[in-house]
Parts: sequence; structure tokens; C-alpha cells
Amino acid sequence: MSQTHLFRALPLSALAISLATLAQAADLPVRASAGEVVKQSKPSDWRPLDPNNTLYMELPTGRVVIELAPDFAPQNIANIKTLVKERYFDGLSMLRSQDNYVAQWGDPDAEGASPKPQGSAKAKVVGEFTVPMKNDKHFVRQLDIDGYAPQIGHSNGFPVGRDPKAGTTWLTHCYGMVGVGRNNETDSGNGAELYAVNGHAPRHLDRNITVVGRVVWGMPLLATLPRGGETMGFYGAGETRMQIKSVRLEADVPEAERSHLEVMRSEAPIYQAVIDASRNRGGPWNKFTPKYVELCNAQIPVREHPKD
Amino acid sequence: MSQTHLFRALPLSALAISLATLAQAADLPVRASAGEVVKQSKPSDWRPLDPNNTLYMELPTGRVVIELAPDFAPQNIANIKTLVKERYFDGLSMLRSQDNYVAQWGDPDAEGASPKPQGSAKAKVVGEFTVPMKNDKHFVRQLDIDGYAPQIGHSNGFPVGRDPKAGTTWLTHCYGMVGVGRNNETDSGNGAELYAVNGHAPRHLDRNITVVGRVVWGMPLLATLPRGGETMGFYGAGETRMQIKSVRLEADVPEAERSHLEVMRSEAPIYQAVIDASRNRGGPWNKFTPKYVELCNAQIPVREHPKD
Repeated sequence: MSQTHLFRALPLSALAISLATLAQAADLPVRASAGEVVKQSKPSDWRPLDPNNTLYMELPTGRVVIELAPDFAPQNIANIKTLVKERYFDGLSMLRSQDNYVAQWGDPDAEGASPKPQGSAKAKVVGEFTVPMKNDKHFVRQLDIDGYAPQIGHSNGFPVGRDPKAGTTWLTHCYGMVGVGRNNETDSGNGAELYAVNGHAPRHLDRNITVVGRVVWGMPLLATLPRGGETMGFYGAGETRMQIKSVRLEADVPEAERSHLEVMRSEAPIYQAVIDASRNRGGPWNKFTPKYVELCNAQIPVREHPKD
Repeated sequence: MSQTHLFRALPLSALAISLATLAQAADLPVRASAGEVVKQSKPSDWRPLDPNNTLYMELPTGRVVIELAPDFAPQNIANIKTLVKERYFDGLSMLRSQDNYVAQWGDPDAEGASPKPQGSAKAKVVGEFTVPMKNDKHFVRQLDIDGYAPQIGHSNGFPVGRDPKAGTTWLTHCYGMVGVGRNNETDSGNGAELYAVNGHAPRHLDRNITVVGRVVWGMPLLATLPRGGETMGFYGAGETRMQIKSVRLEADVPEAERSHLEVMRSEAPIYQAVIDASRNRGGPWNKFTPKYVELCNAQIPVREHPKD
């Protein structure tokens, strides 16, 4: 989750003291920060990832964990799981890293002479740019205004846009969201080439492309990839593409090798308190509070299971 | 500037053909993309950087160019220039890289036993979190709604928020914007510790901290810094901090070693056309157009002078 402070390198102990001092001096409680609200959560405010909808992408630099959202892209996710089960991604590589936009991975020879065979996966999958509104289970609306969607909110731990008139809902392109690369035709993506947002949310992509989930762990590994030298950040012939060691469904990884992550339940009251703390920032550092939080700044907390 | 497409690795020639084919087939002109609008610009639509308000930060990995905005933070920028003239930053280092937030640099021993002397610079400078509205020269309002500011727009190539009731204006924390780290007191920053936004715009910082300018070149060098392992992305004792070779005012760098960058004039009609192209996206790839562009997605083009 985001941090609210831009300190110089003060030790945390000094901070705690200054918070306490201020509360005492002003004879007022100091409003809890988002981080402090998270600390007040109960175990039931969190849910584990579903092993059947969680991907581990193993890079030479570490593990990237992607939570899939099958309610929002059932057909594309089914095809991705087929590709993963048949080990399509193993040995493929990062194709693109465009600053303040996306990192993208897949087969460098996808359009070349000898693309890697895609086994029993479908070559084309219908674009699931929006889905019927009933699909956004546990939707909780966020009332802050938004320019890209008539309504916004969260569903099962994902940021969501909604158009009640059209009866549609969709995942929004916030930082770390994962989508299905495509050509001009809406069914030209099949999940064999995926991207993750590595900068300011490119929300104009919402409703234009299939979003399948979110990087819930290891996003720095994708964000710090060297930017590619070609147009749109693609790596050129002379550049090294980071190789993907493997992509596995969590369910297919032995228990001892799993990451055991938990996501805060976005429908739990405490998550609304987290958003509210982001909207109304207190504490001695903040001099102005915006009373607003933009959808992609309301980040859903993720943690390692406390027992681990 | 941002790219609009998320292709699979199609050669550009194929793209050009499909654009032409579509225009022909539909017997309609294809709406120009933001990139195509930029290509239609005249030399007079661009301005060079002011050598007296441009910093070159030389890193082992290359040059970061920062355009300063003295109308928005005159006192802090004067102090930064003193620090730069007296070579304060040379040999200091990156202190912090927090994913989806900021990279920050300065003296690792600033709060320690032997901080680097700051010469004739002031130890404290008043916080310039907002300035009088008359300071946002050449302001052009952007009419898209915004949750963080009553009005938004651009002034002299910088993204700006405005509160007409309060009569104030301020630079907004979009990707690449540079600010002055501070402690809890509003005058505790002096420009000796600076940060750049490396992720989704943390606009809640607007009006809470002094923003001095924007990284107009080399942002990938800051964005790809390894994330720090300590709280808030600070580098810990065992981690390598990237050293800053030097920071110089462009005016103090020999002509032959300068970068010769140009920024599109944000008050020029063509810039409004660029924003409009981002708002109303055409072409064969886009299936839905948001008719909206968020302030931090309306990025002001920067280029190397065409003669170079």
C-alpha cells in the first residue's frame, strides 16, 4: 500500500514521538493513517489467494504473483490457464518495457518465422473488454468522482469501473493491473502475450482491451526492467530480453514453495476505512487534506500470511 | 509522450498499411493520434529549455534533465541553485526508491554524525506549497474534471492545479515531477533532498510540499532504480546506493555537452490539439474512446532539437 510521507531519513522512533507529542499538545487524537488502519484489521478482514486463480511467474530476479479475476474475463483466463498448464511461457521473455506505461511478455518470435506452438490453447479469444454488471461480485461503490467511468468501486479486491446504463462492468488499468495484448481485431489476443501497467494508470485502455488480473507481489521486478530502445519500449535486436523461467498456477506448486499471500477483502468495512484514511489524511506531516482519493490511489492491501 | 497502442510485436509497416486500409474501407479520415498531431507541429510550437533553470544530474547510468519552474517555488529553487553552484550534490546518492511512489536523493548522512556541509545555502526555506495565481503564466485551463483541484491546466509546460477562491496555484504531482523532501515542519526542506514521482501520481501530496519542476529527460534512469529494502523504499545499510556523479546548471555546462531539449509550448493551440487527440482516440485499435483525459495523462511533449 502507498505510504503518505516524504520524509528526510528520520528514524521511525522520532516519528512516533512527534506523533505522540502533537496529539498531546493539541489535546486531540491524531487521525489514523491508512497504514495504521490496516494494522487494526482482524484475520477475517483478509482472504487468501485462490490457488486456482493465482499465477507465479518466476524470473531470474524473483517471483511475480498475479491474481486472476475470472469473473471479468472467463474465456481469456481459461486460455491463459491452458497455456500455463502446457508450460507455454517457460523460456519465453520480456518483450517490452515502456516507461510510464507497460511491461509486456511473451514469445519474441510470435510474429516471426518459428513461433512457439501454443498446444491446445485457442489462437483467438473473444475480447472481454466489459462483462455484465452482475459479474462484479461484492462490488462496493467508491463515491469519489472519476472521469473515465460513470461509477467506480472495488469488486473482490480489484478496482472496477461500471456503466449502469449499459449494464457493464470492467477492471480498470491501475498500476500493476495485467491485460491481454492484442492487435486491431478485438479477438486477436489470446493471453499468450500479457502486459502489466508500470506507471500512471493508462485508463484510456479501459473498455478497449481485456484485463485479467493484478500483480499482487513482485511488481518492482517488472517496474525496474530496463526500458526497451525501440518504439513503444520494445526491446530491439541488440538488447537483452529477460527470460521467463516459468509460469505456474499456484495450485500446481508444492505447498512448501507457495507464497501464502492474503488480500484485504474490499467488501469489508475496514477497507472502506482504509480508503477514508487516504481521503482524509491526518497526522503531523499533512498540512492539506484533499478529501478525495482517486480510484488508482486507493490500493488494496496485500500481505504475507502473518504466520509465515 | 504516451503511446496509445498495446500491440503484439507487429512491424510498424504493417500498422501503417492497416491504418490506410481502414481509412479507405470506411471512406473516412482516420482521426489523428496524439503522436500524429505532434508531428504536425511547427518549430514555433516548441521552446528550448532555459539554461538558467535546467539541471543536469549525471548518474553512472546517464543524464537526468530537470526543468525548474521558478514561478512556482522561487525561494526553494534559488536555494537549490546555490547548492548546485557549490557542488553540494556531487558524490551524494540515491537514498530511496519506493515502488509506485518516488525516487529520492541527497546526503545519506544528512541526519547522521557528519552531514555534508551546505555552504552558503539556507538550512531552512519557507514551504512554497502554493503560490499566488498570477504566477501561473500562460495558464491554459483543461476542462476535464479533477478530484484533487477546483481547476487544472498547464502553465509554461507544467501541470497545474488552481483554487480561484483561495487565489492560489500549484504544480501537481504527476509522473516525473520533482519536489523538495521535508520533515513535519513546513520550512524543514531546503532543496538538499529532492524526489521524483516514479509511479501513479500521488496527488494527495499537492499543496503539502514544494514542487520545483519536472524530469524532462532520463526519467527511466530514476524509475528503474532497484527498490530499497527499508520502510518507504529507503536503502538500508547493506544495500548499494547509486552515487550521483554531479548536478550542474545547464548554463554552467559547455555548449558542446548540452542536451538541447525542447518542450512543446503548453499555451500553443497545437498542445490543445494533442490533449484533444488523447481525449478522443481514433484509429483502428481503439474500440471505445473515453472523451476524457486525466491531468497526469496529458503529458507535455519533449524532444531533442531536430537539428541535433
